[in-house]
Amino acid sequence: MNKKRAAIIGYGNVGKAVLEALQSAPDFEVAGVVRRSNSYIKELENIPVVTDIKELTNVDVAILCTPTRKISEFAKEILALGINTVDSFDIHTSIVDLINELDPIAKNHNAVSIVSAGWDPGSDSVVRTLLEAMAPKGITYTNFGPGMSMGHTVAVKAIEGVKNALSMTIPLGTSIHRRMVYIELEDGYNFADIEQKIKNDPYFIHDETHVMQVSNIDALKDMGHGVNLTRKGVSGCTQNQLFEFNMRINNPALTGQVLVACARATFKQQTGCYTMIEIPPINLVYGNREDLIKRLV
Amino acid sequence: MNKKRAAIIGYGNVGKAVLEALQSAPDFEVAGVVRRSNSYIKELENIPVVTDIKELTNVDVAILCTPTRKISEFAKEILALGINTVDSFDIHTSIVDLINELDPIAKNHNAVSIVSAGWDPGSDSVVRTLLEAMAPKGITYTNFGPGMSMGHTVAVKAIEGVKNALSMTIPLGTSIHRRMVYIELEDGYNFADIEQKIKNDPYFIHDETHVMQVSNIDALKDMGHGVNLTRKGVSGCTQNQLFEFNMRINNPALTGQVLVACARATFKQQTGCYTMIEIPPINLVYGNREDLIKRLV
Repeated sequence: MNKKRAAIIGYGNVGKAVLEALQSAPDFEVAGVVRRSNSYIKELENIPVVTDIKELTNVDVAILCTPTRKISEFAKEILALGINTVDSFDIHTSIVDLINELDPIAKNHNAVSIVSAGWDPGSDSVVRTLLEAMAPKGITYTNFGPGMSMGHTVAVKAIEGVKNALSMTIPLGTSIHRRMVYIELEDGYNFADIEQKIKNDPYFIHDETHVMQVSNIDALKDMGHGVNLTRKGVSGCTQNQLFEFNMRINNPALTGQVLVACARATFKQQTGCYTMIEIPPINLVYGNREDLIKRLV
Repeated sequence: MNKKRAAIIGYGNVGKAVLEALQSAPDFEVAGVVRRSNSYIKELENIPVVTDIKELTNVDVAILCTPTRKISEFAKEILALGINTVDSFDIHTSIVDLINELDPIAKNHNAVSIVSAGWDPGSDSVVRTLLEAMAPKGITYTNFGPGMSMGHTVAVKAIEGVKNALSMTIPLGTSIHRRMVYIELEDGYNFADIEQKIKNDPYFIHDETHVMQVSNIDALKDMGHGVNLTRKGVSGCTQNQLFEFNMRINNPALTGQVLVACARATFKQQTGCYTMIEIPPINLVYGNREDLIKRLV
């Protein structure tokens, strides 16, 4: 079989999960890992580790596991080399802008990009779209957690006097969330002041937020997360159609797996930039068409 | 707006639901209904009712609401007219054969066909495919009901001595189902004999089956149905990823709505024959690309 060669860009939690998903996939081989430094990491011993993707050979697709704000820059550079890209860009309000930036570059260099390929945005987006097709009128609620919010945790860590932090998202239903914030304080700072700053931060001001001081954040960290997505709507003129999607998952493992599924799908798309709701689901999975139809339809 | 003109082929429970879904859709108009007879039906007063689709003008897509075993015949005839078709063909083991029959005809006449567009096969197939992309190793269980099984009910009605019947599907988990069969007996037949025949029928012989005699089947009938679809699997090498999809729905209303969503999607596909897992989900819903991405991704 002609295996596709994938490069992993960035090697944090998601990059590591992507490596595992690629190594488990029958149709991929790892072309290498692109990192800022090529310091020793045990599980990368037999894998080329470089600081620039141009040092790797015959890369078919690059899987971007960098911070969200770096994605546009990396994707543009890599698409311009004629290499497909996938990423899990997660700023919902900027996805259309990212597409409009990447689409012409992909088309000019005969490449395909799939953006926002994670679980939300990502697989949840596919479920939301499917449910709207099944009941066009109605309301969908996406309830996250319990699980660690990366964005909220980073926002707390940015506050002066916070040594380490963890912001947990707790679902209260109807897309309303409680924020449970755990912090380690730097010496010489007052807890009540910091608590107030967190509660007034734009990330937290609209949500019920509880702040607690702890001595060891690392002892609380767990990569599990979850979603409860519901829709109650109307099919034709029949009311009260009820739908629910639940998951309890390891967050980076699922993100890495969805990225690899979308990397596979890039080879079936016309050149250009897409989101997951624009991808035929069959192209996300490994196998031939007839077998997949027999087994999954 | 250039509305697409849809013909409804067959006017039972699903045909009626398709009419309601078309009338609720901003991008469709009803070209007419094709029935065996054009006897008077109140809600069809202002709609052309004909016995042959050739009597209707400018049909863009035909939505087949006939019994499953008639679908191949109707689809071939209509595709040969260059008209797109959608159907909810539901014999899982024959879907690939149907595709292979319709695909060349669709291609030769510049048309598109989407087959098995209901909820199972149909939207459930999309969920199963997505979950396999998210956790490639693992087991998916599709649990149906409680709800009326059309196929099992028809099988019971075919037994001599059965005047009317209803077979309910009760989910017991892990894709195991109990069959609750309610029958009205013809005069002069023995209940115990009929009960044995039902339990020995290929439709029932492998399932826990209970047969009960009642005086009025119609008093028990309810078009509600449901699904509980679960997957526990592995993303990359992370075990115990848990997924669940539930719905409680009116059966013909959902089937009709999914058919209309797929009718919409036919206009975005290359010529040929497809199942729902081969359709980009965004094409199932009404709206422009940027708005849908902003709202759903």
